[in-house]
Amino acid sequence: MVNRIQKIEEQFLNYVRKMMSYNEAISLMYWDLRTGAPKKGVEQRSEVIGVLSQEVFKMLTSEEMAAYIAKLSPKDVQEQLSHITRYTLRECMKEYERNKKIPAEEYKEYVVMQSKAEAVWEEAKKSADFSMFRPYLEKLVQFNQKFIHYWGYKDHPYNTLLDLYEPGMTVEILDDVFSCLRERIVPLVKAIVQSSNKPRTSFLFAKFPREKQRELSLALLKELGYDFEAGRLDETVHPFAIGLNPGDVRITTKYDENDFRTALFGTIHECGHALYEQNISKELVGTPLCSGTSMGIHESQSLFYENFIGRHYAYWKRNYRLLKEYAPEQFANVSLDEFYRAINEAKPSLIRIEADELTYPLHIMVRYEIEKGLFNGTIEVKDLPDIWNDKYEEYLGIRPDNDAVGVLQDVHWAGGSFGYFPSYALGYMYAAQLKNAMVKDLPHFDELLEKGDLLPIREWLTAKVHCFGKMKKPLEILQEATGEGLNADYLISYLEEKYKTIYRL
Amino acid sequence: MVNRIQKIEEQFLNYVRKMMSYNEAISLMYWDLRTGAPKKGVEQRSEVIGVLSQEVFKMLTSEEMAAYIAKLSPKDVQEQLSHITRYTLRECMKEYERNKKIPAEEYKEYVVMQSKAEAVWEEAKKSADFSMFRPYLEKLVQFNQKFIHYWGYKDHPYNTLLDLYEPGMTVEILDDVFSCLRERIVPLVKAIVQSSNKPRTSFLFAKFPREKQRELSLALLKELGYDFEAGRLDETVHPFAIGLNPGDVRITTKYDENDFRTALFGTIHECGHALYEQNISKELVGTPLCSGTSMGIHESQSLFYENFIGRHYAYWKRNYRLLKEYAPEQFANVSLDEFYRAINEAKPSLIRIEADELTYPLHIMVRYEIEKGLFNGTIEVKDLPDIWNDKYEEYLGIRPDNDAVGVLQDVHWAGGSFGYFPSYALGYMYAAQLKNAMVKDLPHFDELLEKGDLLPIREWLTAKVHCFGKMKKPLEILQEATGEGLNADYLISYLEEKYKTIYRL
Repeated sequence: MVNRIQKIEEQFLNYVRKMMSYNEAISLMYWDLRTGAPKKGVEQRSEVIGVLSQEVFKMLTSEEMAAYIAKLSPKDVQEQLSHITRYTLRECMKEYERNKKIPAEEYKEYVVMQSKAEAVWEEAKKSADFSMFRPYLEKLVQFNQKFIHYWGYKDHPYNTLLDLYEPGMTVEILDDVFSCLRERIVPLVKAIVQSSNKPRTSFLFAKFPREKQRELSLALLKELGYDFEAGRLDETVHPFAIGLNPGDVRITTKYDENDFRTALFGTIHECGHALYEQNISKELVGTPLCSGTSMGIHESQSLFYENFIGRHYAYWKRNYRLLKEYAPEQFANVSLDEFYRAINEAKPSLIRIEADELTYPLHIMVRYEIEKGLFNGTIEVKDLPDIWNDKYEEYLGIRPDNDAVGVLQDVHWAGGSFGYFPSYALGYMYAAQLKNAMVKDLPHFDELLEKGDLLPIREWLTAKVHCFGKMKKPLEILQEATGEGLNADYLISYLEEKYKTIYRL
Repeated sequence: MVNRIQKIEEQFLNYVRKMMSYNEAISLMYWDLRTGAPKKGVEQRSEVIGVLSQEVFKMLTSEEMAAYIAKLSPKDVQEQLSHITRYTLRECMKEYERNKKIPAEEYKEYVVMQSKAEAVWEEAKKSADFSMFRPYLEKLVQFNQKFIHYWGYKDHPYNTLLDLYEPGMTVEILDDVFSCLRERIVPLVKAIVQSSNKPRTSFLFAKFPREKQRELSLALLKELGYDFEAGRLDETVHPFAIGLNPGDVRITTKYDENDFRTALFGTIHECGHALYEQNISKELVGTPLCSGTSMGIHESQSLFYENFIGRHYAYWKRNYRLLKEYAPEQFANVSLDEFYRAINEAKPSLIRIEADELTYPLHIMVRYEIEKGLFNGTIEVKDLPDIWNDKYEEYLGIRPDNDAVGVLQDVHWAGGSFGYFPSYALGYMYAAQLKNAMVKDLPHFDELLEKGDLLPIREWLTAKVHCFGKMKKPLEILQEATGEGLNADYLISYLEEKYKTIYRL
């Protein structure tokens, strides 16, 4: 009896390993397309990616997969499986059911609609004309409403979409944390706008040669503990990190010679993502568990490095001297304090991806409230521009004067991604909550930054977050690492304390 | 009836396209491993390559493939197929039969033996000790003898191995061309050794900075017509060209700061390979026809560019000035004539990969005669070192004083590749014969080089060689492009004329 199950378990793991191999090949092709594949080969390469992706989809939804699920999922059988097999099975079942519940024809229509919508969105954004995009957005919302119907939902239809990106996340939890944020961050932002103690920032925009920025990025990555034997740094228009396997996690950055912050903070941000993937337990290689557990937890790691390390005073107490070596003239007459205040400037702006850490969560709140309304039927697509603009005025005190810098700014909805945005804000909250717990174990956190001794921090994150891959769900990781559920207070207190000091409120 | 066949044809082409997609993904992973993949990811990446390769092998030898062959190969059915399908079927049948005829168990043993042999060869070469390698080489020869038995042969057992790399090539043809070479090149080499008019070469070894060499390589590639929108240049220890598809053909080179010739001629050589792959007809994408037709024809293209262009006086009449821009001091006191003679220096040497164009074919002749003897039973492995050394003395006038610089120098045999070496010499002969035919159509060949107008040359090669991919066999290409079968006279006359002038014989 045991032998039979062991045999099926082994076959199942081999089957999964094959899917994962295809995925790794796809990821490398994706990386290559972004970092320097010659353009005349792109069309054929996309074909190849299509063939392999289709194969993965087929394997995920095949009768063979159904048979493994049927044979391995009974409770008494599961008890005989290894931990890794059990969780691998869980992931496969989830994907299998999700994919099987949507009629194939309908899904095909949806994919076609997505790519059409993305093309139309690009045009609509160019001409700042929401009405062009509206019918497509309406269709995409309808498709997702039907998917929710097929998949079912608990308490709130939007929960099903949230679960795609942040397993276990609910409207109930998000309503709670966003209302806290609204109550305390909105007034803080207003106070900062009115403050007369704004930082001087003009020196940020001096010319910083590309090659010097690259050298600086490499030096900082090394200090942060990014393992160059398990990764590499390249240049792209839109920076990203990609984990092919824990021994090969690549990052890219972008050098703006007139604003070194793009590369500096971008590189540190991607480094946070990369450290997550580099430190997943090697045991999980070849299974779907071998990647970050959710969008939100992934973002918590990048934001932890970007903000809680990269924008921390103690970090620059150590590294400002280094920065000056790469651009001596630019910072000749800038004190450390001035520099620190400048890189932490906060001010309301219209564009999410350009927002600072204080106002960023408010941009997400606008999108969250709209998405929630679209799926419980209280908001209609036709009203989006007005609702969007009103909310920006309410939370950020500024109003977009056209849709290009308003409701049309993000690609997410055009790609059919609803439920994705909250993970960005969750990343901030998770990061702050993890930081609070970390400091209990590492009370000399600031000193570690000052000494450049980042190993204990990395080890803490590896032990509490990285190593598990998808073995633990986001809220499970949070609970075990911090002893409580999601709590927005940690982010709020951090922001209040930091920005009241910087703006002398 | 027609409809049914069309349907099978379409299914077959889709099936093949899938295999080719896997191959393209494998090729990209291979390129990536060579050009900068982080070392900690290599083991897992090799796994992924293994999974995909196994899948391709399965598809190539599957029952589904057998069914396509059975349904599509009858003559009356073939007549209804497109040209491309027919030739694709031919390639698939050849591979199918080749793979099916060897018992799976035996092939597995062979693969294991290959990798063991390569490891042992490396050690044996380090300690210059043939006796370590001998038992492995004996086994590999035995395996290949058995394969020949399974596959069958015509006239000479070695013909079956030649056909693996150079379809249609035979001992009969090779004996003929090599005896011509022996008769006229061996005395020429002797005369050169005794010549008192040797070129001055010391200036070749001045320091030429890496970055300058790279810029020069890029400039020359551009002029040669390498399409950078369909390729890229990277750096590796062992340079190569790789065609992923005609829109993505990458080359690599190696910069030796103390000998600029490595990168210069290496880049031009790989460019010749790359131009072949870039100019294969786009119609053939997604079929096994979309690559060079044989090792020998491929080598003819790289050698055409390296020697008939890159070592031609007219080419340097134009480009010597350019070279001087990148290294003004190195060539300040060197006349064009001196430079030309230096880069065409010929002298007997022990190591094949360091040989010049005059002596290179003699290195191949040694290996050809040994391989032929191993497979018709007139030579035994145990006698190889002596036979090798005797032949070097006879043809090149020098004798290796140990096996590391003698019989152990090449990896080919350790990898089980017998029948591969002749393609290198064939490349020289094909190139010279094509050049002779080309000049009839382009009588002002030298002027084209002097003007840097390489388009007519590229177009000629595309029309006569490149565009066909594997649609035509090597000797078919040669016959149609030159009006005759393989003829060593063209290479011999070219070498005699060139080297008698250079050495003033």
